[in-house]
Amino acid sequence: MTRVGIRDVAKAAGVSVTTVSHALNDVDGSRVKAETQDHIRAIAKDLGYAPNRLASGLRNQRSQIIGLVSDEIATTPFAGDMIRGAQDAAYERGYLLMVVNSGLDRRLEEHEIRSLQQHQVDGIVYAKMFHQSTEVPAGLKGIPTVLLDGTSGNPEVSSVVPDEVGAAEAAVEVLIQAGHRRIGMLNNVDDIPATHGRYQGYRSTLERHGLAFNPQYLATDRPDARAGREQALKMLSTAEGPTALFCFSDQVAMGAYQAAAQLGLRIPEDLSIISVDNLEIVAGALWPGLTTMALPHYDMGRWAVTRLLDDIATPGRPPEQEVLACPLVSRGSVGPPPG
Amino acid sequence: MTRVGIRDVAKAAGVSVTTVSHALNDVDGSRVKAETQDHIRAIAKDLGYAPNRLASGLRNQRSQIIGLVSDEIATTPFAGDMIRGAQDAAYERGYLLMVVNSGLDRRLEEHEIRSLQQHQVDGIVYAKMFHQSTEVPAGLKGIPTVLLDGTSGNPEVSSVVPDEVGAAEAAVEVLIQAGHRRIGMLNNVDDIPATHGRYQGYRSTLERHGLAFNPQYLATDRPDARAGREQALKMLSTAEGPTALFCFSDQVAMGAYQAAAQLGLRIPEDLSIISVDNLEIVAGALWPGLTTMALPHYDMGRWAVTRLLDDIATPGRPPEQEVLACPLVSRGSVGPPPG
Repeated sequence: MTRVGIRDVAKAAGVSVTTVSHALNDVDGSRVKAETQDHIRAIAKDLGYAPNRLASGLRNQRSQIIGLVSDEIATTPFAGDMIRGAQDAAYERGYLLMVVNSGLDRRLEEHEIRSLQQHQVDGIVYAKMFHQSTEVPAGLKGIPTVLLDGTSGNPEVSSVVPDEVGAAEAAVEVLIQAGHRRIGMLNNVDDIPATHGRYQGYRSTLERHGLAFNPQYLATDRPDARAGREQALKMLSTAEGPTALFCFSDQVAMGAYQAAAQLGLRIPEDLSIISVDNLEIVAGALWPGLTTMALPHYDMGRWAVTRLLDDIATPGRPPEQEVLACPLVSRGSVGPPPG
Repeated sequence: MTRVGIRDVAKAAGVSVTTVSHALNDVDGSRVKAETQDHIRAIAKDLGYAPNRLASGLRNQRSQIIGLVSDEIATTPFAGDMIRGAQDAAYERGYLLMVVNSGLDRRLEEHEIRSLQQHQVDGIVYAKMFHQSTEVPAGLKGIPTVLLDGTSGNPEVSSVVPDEVGAAEAAVEVLIQAGHRRIGMLNNVDDIPATHGRYQGYRSTLERHGLAFNPQYLATDRPDARAGREQALKMLSTAEGPTALFCFSDQVAMGAYQAAAQLGLRIPEDLSIISVDNLEIVAGALWPGLTTMALPHYDMGRWAVTRLLDDIATPGRPPEQEVLACPLVSRGSVGPPPG
């Protein structure tokens, strides 16, 4: 298959290239009859001809395209919602969103950014697939950029991340309001903002309610189901164990469910569980459904693109470091404490 | 922020625009000294200047970019592996892969395809996020196209899908080899190739081993955990119930695990379970780990891009309708039947 060109359309329509160009571009004052114009358009459509945007891109220096450069879409189930939010916001304002993924390969990332610039994208959303502090690549200098699910040391770049502390505060508050006083936390061991923020929210909420922090109620391990199961088994097997668990993630909570089943504890009658993520394929599939704080991936994607398009339309606005709330999604894993 | 242009580089380097252009493009016979060239390149890099690919695109009519148009990346956790496979294959051959998502919106899809063509992508992978028969959009006429995880009535378009029948045959074979004779199937109710193909593989494998098909061992319902749990509960509660379950998907298998727990059946001692997907976040997180046939998303992504780039390099090759095998991933959910 070869690309259909304007000459092919002209030949098929029996007119000149200039006539085709005028007909397709609605040139004012051209002498192409409406009837001829319709005829040419029908033929162009039939042949699958698309006018060469490259040439017009050279004139107006606007591509109406923004790029989303992400690190590892492949290994995370969160990417979809972020991209959908970004996509919707771009579409509503007449922009096309192009996603490129580097898979943590610096060289590929540089190549991608260069290619996007060469194709004159109007701006770039630089996305991380989990909340982290990062550096804005040097290649993005000189092009409007917004950081998605990441923060950088560069105060000139706008960014959006979830409210990790607030998510933990709200989750622990839910457990306390249900009547729990012995609340354990299965935390992540990775040195990332979610680990520290959620721990901080857990501690401060206990404190605000006058509940003493018990080191036996805190476990720190990998953020997966296996670690969640093992840590929950240990913590729940002690005398005076917790009646409720605040889990770092839905995957960790899945492990806590397995521990509960192994120990013969019913959820939520004998043990309440709450976490952070709202990964539907896990939280919605567990039985009973997992009550969890939703990471606002869709909203972060929307925010990043909206901010970027505002920056493109009105350069020079002061940058913002936005922090979005994580809403509670109640399913069936939280109840009053036993007894 | 404004885009850095060639004039900015020339000004910063104290040379003419022509000199910058020659220095950056390695023009033969230009009189730019190596030292000056290095100086200009360093400044261009420092300023974040990228040469205008649009202008050179007009000359060679090759963008070295291919597009991947997908329907609903957001609602599926499978997208990542397909995109990663496509990405890797593109990168290895010096191509950039740009992903656009329509979210099932026909109008948006048309717009995206038009935009990609206007930016002269060299070809397009048209991807479906689960195996289905589809129509190749009219807008793709005239541009090299490969269909990913879908088939069409158009024999001129190459396509790649997973071997649904083969996956089921291999899965049921695993159960039979472990000694099972009473094998149930929890199937999907949707009218899609996976439903029909996996059912066919289940039936033919029973038959090949001389095992009679028992209608009580077949359930057809939504492909989610809730339906999996409910159907497994029913099937396992009957006298002479199955000792092994072949599940449509990992999500359905997750429901079967819940039913087993509820009935006090241990996996795999009392009940063996196998499925299709290999969605790590489910199959790897279940306890014991779920033995499942992996849908070859990564390999399909690679295949589609490799075929597309071959078609771009050598037009006119006969199209292929490729069907890729689904490899077995053994974890811990299959054992010999009880007793």
